[in-house]
Amino acid sequence: MSELAVTARTRHSRLRDQGSVERADLVAILRAGFVCHLGLIIDGYPMVLPTVYGIDTDATTLYLHGSVASRSLLENPEATVCVTVTHVDGLVLARSVFEHGVNYRSAMVFGSPRLLSEPAEKLEGLRLLSEHAAPGQWAYARQPSKKELAKTSILALDLAEASVKIRSGGPSDGDSPDAELGLWAGVIPMRTAWGAPEAAADLAPEIAVPPHITALSRGR
Amino acid sequence: MSELAVTARTRHSRLRDQGSVERADLVAILRAGFVCHLGLIIDGYPMVLPTVYGIDTDATTLYLHGSVASRSLLENPEATVCVTVTHVDGLVLARSVFEHGVNYRSAMVFGSPRLLSEPAEKLEGLRLLSEHAAPGQWAYARQPSKKELAKTSILALDLAEASVKIRSGGPSDGDSPDAELGLWAGVIPMRTAWGAPEAAADLAPEIAVPPHITALSRGR
Repeated sequence: MSELAVTARTRHSRLRDQGSVERADLVAILRAGFVCHLGLIIDGYPMVLPTVYGIDTDATTLYLHGSVASRSLLENPEATVCVTVTHVDGLVLARSVFEHGVNYRSAMVFGSPRLLSEPAEKLEGLRLLSEHAAPGQWAYARQPSKKELAKTSILALDLAEASVKIRSGGPSDGDSPDAELGLWAGVIPMRTAWGAPEAAADLAPEIAVPPHITALSRGR
Repeated sequence: MSELAVTARTRHSRLRDQGSVERADLVAILRAGFVCHLGLIIDGYPMVLPTVYGIDTDATTLYLHGSVASRSLLENPEATVCVTVTHVDGLVLARSVFEHGVNYRSAMVFGSPRLLSEPAEKLEGLRLLSEHAAPGQWAYARQPSKKELAKTSILALDLAEASVKIRSGGPSDGDSPDAELGLWAGVIPMRTAWGAPEAAADLAPEIAVPPHITALSRGR
């Protein structure tokens, strides 16, 4: 895959060795999660909202579930937003406090999202959101009615301007004088995993967990 | 504990039933993580940066590791930031796509952070950050030198203006006509956990994992 174009906003000014301009890294980070943090400016101050997202098959567009964001975009359709997706992979414990850190994969996407209004486009955006979080669930569950779709806000953001940072591996003070201190150093990995599906309390007991849900809770 | 004061920024305008004004909920959400998303305005656009944080014992102040943020604050010391901490607890699968959702706990804190400059205050902020992520590690590892402390940026933000949202439990369409569709509905829980500590590749084999690290990887 190609490289990400570097802009004033996405240039890595700090910890450059953790920066990546590989588009493949961006796409992998986005595919590995389904909740992002959407940053926008409301009444002159920044607001950071967690929301769900999805991406299309060729990873050219990010779809976001909007709410507060969509109201703000109706007032200012040209507004730039920043969408950040972060996976925390571990805590890096060095010999010195100063060299401590976090293993993580993070992507930041900038742009002016479009608030989708055409029903077919909204439906497709919602389908991608749903398939991103739970593949197979869109075809299984009841599809949205016209009224439900009208009540849903979906934002589409080009995956054109993005910044990626990745840190992995152990602490870096193994070749410093601190290594002589005799202190333990390493990583405590952190993992996020699905648990076994829990049926709704009011679900009829004869309704089994469908295979796509069993696969999902095994697969991540 | 007390209730959070509601301001124009923290009023829950949407999904009000998921809003909480309990200060205890805010503190519990902050204590349950160590990576936040810091939103700030740089050159007129929003930026959302993942960073580590800690809180003091009586939960009056949030401490943040700054970098890009601190440079921006030097230029505009009165700037408001938004710090969001989110824990994803599960995916809520309903009978209809429209009723799908996420179980989560999220806190948003607004305010103008102070960039700490006084060494003793910076050291205490850094200690709280370290103890928040890995209790016991501050006393175990080598403390920062004057030079290292000078290179570290710590921001302090009053825990005064905050908004909390929590969603838990199963899907809510069990009493709707959709319940007759015979579809499975429930929650796929998502859990984040520490793994077993992994020693640095260059660590002398006789150095054992210290008890506070063993306790940490068991405890979360």
